[in-house]
Amino acid sequence: MKRPTIADIARRAGVSKGAVSYALNGQPGVSEATRQRILAIAEEIGFTPNSAARALSGATANAVGLALRRPARILGLEPFFMELISGVEAELSARSYALTLQVVADPEAEIAVYRRWWGERRVDGVLLCDLRIDDRRVPVLEQLQLPAVVIGGPGHTGGLASVWADDAAALAEAVEYLVALGHRRIARVGGLPELLHTEIRTRAFTDACARLGLSEAVTVACDYTGEQGGRATRRLLSAARRPTAIVYDNDVMAIAGLAAAHELGLAVPGDLSIVAWDDSPLCRLVHPSLTALGRDIPAYGAHAARALLAVIAGDQVGAYQHDTPHLKPRGSTAPPR
Amino acid sequence: MKRPTIADIARRAGVSKGAVSYALNGQPGVSEATRQRILAIAEEIGFTPNSAARALSGATANAVGLALRRPARILGLEPFFMELISGVEAELSARSYALTLQVVADPEAEIAVYRRWWGERRVDGVLLCDLRIDDRRVPVLEQLQLPAVVIGGPGHTGGLASVWADDAAALAEAVEYLVALGHRRIARVGGLPELLHTEIRTRAFTDACARLGLSEAVTVACDYTGEQGGRATRRLLSAARRPTAIVYDNDVMAIAGLAAAHELGLAVPGDLSIVAWDDSPLCRLVHPSLTALGRDIPAYGAHAARALLAVIAGDQVGAYQHDTPHLKPRGSTAPPR
Repeated sequence: MKRPTIADIARRAGVSKGAVSYALNGQPGVSEATRQRILAIAEEIGFTPNSAARALSGATANAVGLALRRPARILGLEPFFMELISGVEAELSARSYALTLQVVADPEAEIAVYRRWWGERRVDGVLLCDLRIDDRRVPVLEQLQLPAVVIGGPGHTGGLASVWADDAAALAEAVEYLVALGHRRIARVGGLPELLHTEIRTRAFTDACARLGLSEAVTVACDYTGEQGGRATRRLLSAARRPTAIVYDNDVMAIAGLAAAHELGLAVPGDLSIVAWDDSPLCRLVHPSLTALGRDIPAYGAHAARALLAVIAGDQVGAYQHDTPHLKPRGSTAPPR
Repeated sequence: MKRPTIADIARRAGVSKGAVSYALNGQPGVSEATRQRILAIAEEIGFTPNSAARALSGATANAVGLALRRPARILGLEPFFMELISGVEAELSARSYALTLQVVADPEAEIAVYRRWWGERRVDGVLLCDLRIDDRRVPVLEQLQLPAVVIGGPGHTGGLASVWADDAAALAEAVEYLVALGHRRIARVGGLPELLHTEIRTRAFTDACARLGLSEAVTVACDYTGEQGGRATRRLLSAARRPTAIVYDNDVMAIAGLAAAHELGLAVPGDLSIVAWDDSPLCRLVHPSLTALGRDIPAYGAHAARALLAVIAGDQVGAYQHDTPHLKPRGSTAPPR
């Protein structure tokens, strides 16, 4: 493997490696004429300063880390993460930052990754996803003084910066819309119950149903996969008093719910109204297209990346509120028969 | 920002930074007793050798690069890349390698990223996706002597290692199956025409149709998005002699095709049979579930990652053939009415 090194420049210029290093780093120790000659040779042979050398001299890693704690095969199915990553990436590459990605199995592995990344100076900062209540990662990042932005909240972020969206307001909007259409039996197929935003949505759902005088507010906890979303839908629709509308915590489960309704011979929206979250393009691929709580996930990722670059630059960054997801009515919702 | 440094160890041990460096790198220059004391202090205060320092001393970057040249918003929708990445990641993290990801706009930007990554020693090797015929990236990587594995082929990979699958055989299997069901008018909604694997599939489709005595073999070129897949389907189904079966180059376009058929009041599979590629879990989320040319994409990514780690280790690696995708018949295919 041959890449131009300081030794190559030194040989060509007939000087020591130390002299080349002085010249490249703008330090005293070589004459101006020699410096110019060395820089010309470096450019001619395509020498690029090693990230290693720059990091040692106090420069940054020019990389941001993202650890994802989901089984690898679920990540492939979930448009949310790839859309988030694409937004993060768009912002980072404009500033010549790289994104370092790692899939982790559990919280311990994730914390070990942060310690290693920071200890080895592989990243200048990290983005934290899937915030939990009493999240053990938050105090570790605070203690490491590793620049970080939490994607989530509000609250539970300790002293870390964060970018969050008002899921509670969005969910209330969906329930109010379904009640306005005439629905009185509304169920919810929720995401992983240990996540903070699931807890926030569950509380918002229960509160909205109570406020609007609905007698029950059933949430079935799932894991965002189509398999569990389809199974929960079949169970809900097989009950004696089946719901006339279901709100899903992501669009993959909503699409599986649509297929489950078709299997059971129920018409959407005639027999069942469906509201999805996230509104990836999947919602417009199915027929009928799905009413969804839409949010611009790439923009959310870009917002978080900008906040992280500000933290890395030493700015004081608090909790930024991102746009609230809002309802996009499509063909999957209508008054109940 | 406070992370333990060599200076901290030196201060605690009452020795010079040079002595600490000798001790940590196993070089002569310090007594064995001092070395042991320094290593103990390093462990106690949680010092991790800087990746920068390790790279300068000839160690590796312990990172692998992947540049993706698709608009960021398309990436979010396409399960293929996230499944591929999850497989690559599973293999890399088992060996403590990180994955550095960058979304690029065009071939020039991609080549510039490779030059920078290698010049700055940010990666030890790269995975090359979306191989084209006469791909300009191949000679650049050869010239840089940057360890690389092409995901694609066969052929057109120059002297680079590769992992490829026999798409031609898979597509022939799909056409033979549809003809065996009684279909005589089969169309194809293809992927980006500039990609090598699209060219291979188009030729295989044309050859199979000719071999089986079908009078036409129409391929409509698309870009893998649901939008274009749906539009191409509407156009094909609105023709005077509409096809009774359509093969799609990915599952997102196939799902959009299913929705387009439903919009037009055509029954699947009664009026139209549908075969998808890739067989991400999306194919089982819709109703009817889609017959697909299935492949284990995470395993494909893991295979490529293993090959790249072998190239980085200096092994001779040629072209590995991965499992051929095979047909998984489901509810979206049947004899034509």
